[in-house]
Amino acid sequence: MIPRNLTESTWREVRAAGERGIALLPIGSQEQHAAHLPMGTDTLLVEAVVDRATALLADGSGPELVRLPALPFGHSPHHLFAAAVSLGAATLGAVLDDVLDSLADSGHRRVLVVNGHGGNDEIMRLAVKRFALRREVTAAACSYWTVTGGEDDGGRPEVTPGHAGWFETSLMLAAHPDLVRTPVPARAPVEPPPLFDRPPHPGLTVERHGEWARVGGSTDDASAADPARGRRLLEARAAGLAGAIRAFDAATR
Amino acid sequence: MIPRNLTESTWREVRAAGERGIALLPIGSQEQHAAHLPMGTDTLLVEAVVDRATALLADGSGPELVRLPALPFGHSPHHLFAAAVSLGAATLGAVLDDVLDSLADSGHRRVLVVNGHGGNDEIMRLAVKRFALRREVTAAACSYWTVTGGEDDGGRPEVTPGHAGWFETSLMLAAHPDLVRTPVPARAPVEPPPLFDRPPHPGLTVERHGEWARVGGSTDDASAADPARGRRLLEARAAGLAGAIRAFDAATR
Amino acid sequence: MIPRNLTESTWREVRAAGERGIALLPIGSQEQHAAHLPMGTDTLLVEAVVDRATALLADGSGPELVRLPALPFGHSPHHLFAAAVSLGAATLGAVLDDVLDSLADSGHRRVLVVNGHGGNDEIMRLAVKRFALRREVTAAACSYWTVTGGEDDGGRPEVTPGHAGWFETSLMLAAHPDLVRTPVPARAPVEPPPLFDRPPHPGLTVERHGEWARVGGSTDDASAADPARGRRLLEARAAGLAGAIRAFDAATR
Amino acid sequence: MIPRNLTESTWREVRAAGERGIALLPIGSQEQHAAHLPMGTDTLLVEAVVDRATALLADGSGPELVRLPALPFGHSPHHLFAAAVSLGAATLGAVLDDVLDSLADSGHRRVLVVNGHGGNDEIMRLAVKRFALRREVTAAACSYWTVTGGEDDGGRPEVTPGHAGWFETSLMLAAHPDLVRTPVPARAPVEPPPLFDRPPHPGLTVERHGEWARVGGSTDDASAADPARGRRLLEARAAGLAGAIRAFDAATR
Amino acid sequence: MIPRNLTESTWREVRAAGERGIALLPIGSQEQHAAHLPMGTDTLLVEAVVDRATALLADGSGPELVRLPALPFGHSPHHLFAAAVSLGAATLGAVLDDVLDSLADSGHRRVLVVNGHGGNDEIMRLAVKRFALRREVTAAACSYWTVTGGEDDGGRPEVTPGHAGWFETSLMLAAHPDLVRTPVPARAPVEPPPLFDRPPHPGLTVERHGEWARVGGSTDDASAADPARGRRLLEARAAGLAGAIRAFDAATR
Amino acid sequence: MIPRNLTESTWREVRAAGERGIALLPIGSQEQHAAHLPMGTDTLLVEAVVDRATALLADGSGPELVRLPALPFGHSPHHLFAAAVSLGAATLGAVLDDVLDSLADSGHRRVLVVNGHGGNDEIMRLAVKRFALRREVTAAACSYWTVTGGEDDGGRPEVTPGHAGWFETSLMLAAHPDLVRTPVPARAPVEPPPLFDRPPHPGLTVERHGEWARVGGSTDDASAADPARGRRLLEARAAGLAGAIRAFDAATR
Repeated sequence: MIPRNLTESTWREVRAAGERGIALLPIGSQEQHAAHLPMGTDTLLVEAVVDRATALLADGSGPELVRLPALPFGHSPHHLFAAAVSLGAATLGAVLDDVLDSLADSGHRRVLVVNGHGGNDEIMRLAVKRFALRREVTAAACSYWTVTGGEDDGGRPEVTPGHAGWFETSLMLAAHPDLVRTPVPARAPVEPPPLFDRPPHPGLTVERHGEWARVGGSTDDASAADPARGRRLLEARAAGLAGAIRAFDAATR
Repeated sequence: MIPRNLTESTWREVRAAGERGIALLPIGSQEQHAAHLPMGTDTLLVEAVVDRATALLADGSGPELVRLPALPFGHSPHHLFAAAVSLGAATLGAVLDDVLDSLADSGHRRVLVVNGHGGNDEIMRLAVKRFALRREVTAAACSYWTVTGGEDDGGRPEVTPGHAGWFETSLMLAAHPDLVRTPVPARAPVEPPPLFDRPPHPGLTVERHGEWARVGGSTDDASAADPARGRRLLEARAAGLAGAIRAFDAATR
Repeated sequence: MIPRNLTESTWREVRAAGERGIALLPIGSQEQHAAHLPMGTDTLLVEAVVDRATALLADGSGPELVRLPALPFGHSPHHLFAAAVSLGAATLGAVLDDVLDSLADSGHRRVLVVNGHGGNDEIMRLAVKRFALRREVTAAACSYWTVTGGEDDGGRPEVTPGHAGWFETSLMLAAHPDLVRTPVPARAPVEPPPLFDRPPHPGLTVERHGEWARVGGSTDDASAADPARGRRLLEARAAGLAGAIRAFDAATR
Repeated sequence: MIPRNLTESTWREVRAAGERGIALLPIGSQEQHAAHLPMGTDTLLVEAVVDRATALLADGSGPELVRLPALPFGHSPHHLFAAAVSLGAATLGAVLDDVLDSLADSGHRRVLVVNGHGGNDEIMRLAVKRFALRREVTAAACSYWTVTGGEDDGGRPEVTPGHAGWFETSLMLAAHPDLVRTPVPARAPVEPPPLFDRPPHPGLTVERHGEWARVGGSTDDASAADPARGRRLLEARAAGLAGAIRAFDAATR
Repeated sequence: MIPRNLTESTWREVRAAGERGIALLPIGSQEQHAAHLPMGTDTLLVEAVVDRATALLADGSGPELVRLPALPFGHSPHHLFAAAVSLGAATLGAVLDDVLDSLADSGHRRVLVVNGHGGNDEIMRLAVKRFALRREVTAAACSYWTVTGGEDDGGRPEVTPGHAGWFETSLMLAAHPDLVRTPVPARAPVEPPPLFDRPPHPGLTVERHGEWARVGGSTDDASAADPARGRRLLEARAAGLAGAIRAFDAATR
Repeated sequence: MIPRNLTESTWREVRAAGERGIALLPIGSQEQHAAHLPMGTDTLLVEAVVDRATALLADGSGPELVRLPALPFGHSPHHLFAAAVSLGAATLGAVLDDVLDSLADSGHRRVLVVNGHGGNDEIMRLAVKRFALRREVTAAACSYWTVTGGEDDGGRPEVTPGHAGWFETSLMLAAHPDLVRTPVPARAPVEPPPLFDRPPHPGLTVERHGEWARVGGSTDDASAADPARGRRLLEARAAGLAGAIRAFDAATR
């Protein structure tokens, strides 16, 4: 079954597919990604993973899919110091509630939100919980970097996903090489490293006022980013997402 | 000056352009458009007009532009009976507030919201008013069908814009012919016509519960829609928007 | 049928009339109207039009009417620089929601909101749309200056309604001459004229921070305001509103 | 100093008086008052008390006063079973916040809210507390029946104020005899009496679902209501309010 | 019947008791209480009264009780100048709504909120009113100092309850002597006394910005506080609350 | 330095300690924990861990601590089918915002929220992020089961923490044996296991409507719970929390 774009489908097509299949909602962000990556990096990457994953399922091996347009804006208040376009947490939560309720009103019973931006994570998880409590649906959520096929994909887990560093830059060199400003300059480690990225104790989250500005807007050095490894990383996430969709379908059919 | 896509630009590029130029935010919808047009019609058409208008200004005759990604979802509660994906009025207002505030935080001082969906109109107008009250900015707004170059564009004002009728179908035949399901079936006039479209007295707005479902989801017969006239209508709106951008720039430089 | 004031009626009278007739809710404002008109001008004028319109219908030629007390406060944030008493947009929307829901709870099925203040317009339109979506009612709305009997009423459309200018002053000289501070001083045109009143391109709304204070709080010269023409203007709106009520009744009986 | 109506004053007059004087905001309700009193009883009575009190102060013995138009709607959810027009508690709180903030923005430093409806009481008290916390103002509040000149006014404290009973009916016979449907029918005591009116233990508030409907919408027998005693009761409240205004002025000048 | 602590009971025990009995919710505050009393004074005292009252009922003479854990935080914005931990009014209202709705969802039909802090009073009363309107329950509320057994308890009504003065200090010397910093220093009367405590006219509430800071955080001299009288005061409230619970039970069984 | 209870301290003591030290806010829940554990299990366990951790730091080896009273209620909408007392997500977020802002207003610059209930996790993380963005503070958060001293504590990670299963029951047998109803009955595994606990693919969150009721309210068999292992588990968390507090202090001094 070829994945169906909601934007390009008529309402009767959407309703019919929705009752049988799974709706996919990608969500991204517009925020600073240092001097070498574009503002839309998170949106572009989640779309790249979803595109590849749905292509892997287009052979009919998976469930019918209705792909919604990506929400191009996310929750990025920590990047407003550097030209982000950010939705407040309550606003993003309300957008997700309204979109999910609309889907339930239209007969969809299974929805998967695929996220491209760390700052959206908790808001997305709360939204799918709320949704499954108030409607008779099954709702799933993931951030694209957390789903892999399980194989060794040559990554560097210690900087995955990071922000505007080796991982995201490698992926962008694979998915949108023309949008990466090269050569990517090397960056010395920041001392001390940002508390949000390297908490002082396992299991502890620490948020310090002004930390993103202090560390210059990225988490790690991106100068060694590599398009070939980016391709492997991207394919592993696409395969992982395709597998997750199949598993979600099997568990909830 | 080539219009700049915010999604593809780095944050420093956006900030520099924002201080000099005008930010453009297209907003659309995902909602039923009868059996022959896709859910994303309003988003696709506002993007088509903005694309053509910015191309007309790409010769340097207009101001520097930063184009934001279109908001693909709008306020369509009256189409929830037929598979819309709708944001509540408060949610859409909050999205516009947050996006506009983010732009002001990033140094933008002039913003233009271009709308593709009638149901967004009042919410957009309230949002730009609020924005200009709370921030030191100048904010503009229009719906794409209301700005024309002024010339006779061969339209049929009595059904412009309507919904899923002659006007929108003609535009879609011009902009996205592959997404129109043809032949477009004829539709007999609904009697009485919907009160929201034909109020019983000039100057009076009337909203009746269940009216959209009663009239079948469109305002007028689309079977005579015409790609050639659709092209003229589209070009007139693009020229009108380009002219509006130039005039906005001139009045607020 | 003599129009019934809700304030002066018992609840059983209101309930009985509400099931058969139409509820009328006037809404106004308290805001600066230059040095010659009182703060309550918009409220006083909408009440004057509603009074005259209901008197025209008191011969039994129209539907049964239940007139609510006017909401004396409106949305005037742009006049807070000059002693307005303003409700926020969310507050005014909530007031309308609560009043309209109360009416529906009491058996009213048809409601008409009549507005006296431009700043209330979008909020009122959104409120009646919401109301007709969530309740099984038919809801109508107009601003008093937009409904006329259609005849030439000797007006000056280029300054109608404006704010604290020729139109409103003429009406006040007709309706409440004792409340107009005379002689009304002449006012030189403001250059450039305010963007909210004279947008730089047709179809474009432009809101500039601080514009009302810059132009001194009124839109046009009121010194030639004329009580005789004010009476004609007022009677034309009253006749128009009476006609709109009859038409609303006929279309929704 | 003659009390000044805000509605009839220009903005400069309001601003000048506001800086020196006290702003008065009456608030009322529209709700069932049994079969013999009109919906607007609470609004009409608070206006009657304020009118008489300001007349007592018009000899210049008190402070300059700016009287706002009465808010005709209050918080009456317990009367929605019988045709009330009610604002939710959050809505009424927001109206008071916005009106009070507007006054502070316009230079008022002393405000007195005078209430005519029991259901508004806590909301009004919370609003004036909030106001005095966030702005550099002094804010006062009272319900009209609680301020008396202290003399024996021939009342019946055990049914004062009650609802649609002896007290309110006597006042209406004094203030608006034409709006009282007479003869007022006798009403047998309800057994058990309503818990909200006669709590089972001193100091305990008890609210039981459906209690207002069970007891028929009034608290006590109104058939012995008496215009002469109504006049004395009304004059005592007017004198009390005038005294309260003088005392407020003296304590905060 | 031994009162049951919700915290220590299983859900089936709570559900069974809730259907038959009365749920008790104590609410307190954390706020400055001058230099001699701890921040949690209001919470500690309401718990002390509830403990003693439920002990009086433990002989089976009263209804089955389910005691919820005390809400340790209250609405204390007027004490934020001095280290309060305060919930906003909307937040506290939402907490009460959610707790009360949870109880109704679990089968409780009778709830009593017992308050230890004056600043919570109106919010609590509004919450129980809302609750009884939207759910089929009976809800009661009191502040602990207002319920007494009726006997002369040797109090000083003119300073009861006050804040951090003779009354509260006497109670704390009885209930938690180790938490009172002694000797309690004498305090000269503040001139003029705070308007919130001594309004300039009976029946008038007056709130002046900055008043709590001006008067130093307490309402009266606590140096003569007395543990023996504190014990009598405390026992009288406990007896009063036990009586109120019996009366509530009898009236609503 | 002995940890200081905010409830028992005067405001000047709190303010002085707050400027130097770290504020600790425990948050819990009241919700069903099967037939053998009490409603307050999460609150009791987070308090047990915090008690033991602060005792470990009472030798002066750690920073000055101000311990707030535990918030006894949490976000448990998924347990409302079985007698939970739950705060909505927005309500709990508002409580945390208000408490954290109060602390910042009082001079606290470092705060640690320690959580005892899985359903609070995302709400707590969002709250500390918001707090560190809007105030010049450093805020930390953890759930008690995620901080350990690192040593092998004899646990069973595959069921840690679970809900009302082996882990929580073992801890309660250690901390509050009198509150555990014994013998704890064995429970057969639920097939299929709940999707929220065992997602069908790594990295995927799945929420299915009605899942908690379907699986009977617990995640795993608790019949083998063991007080001795419970003590080791508890001590490991207490040591871990003490270590996390020291590390937080060291990183932010």
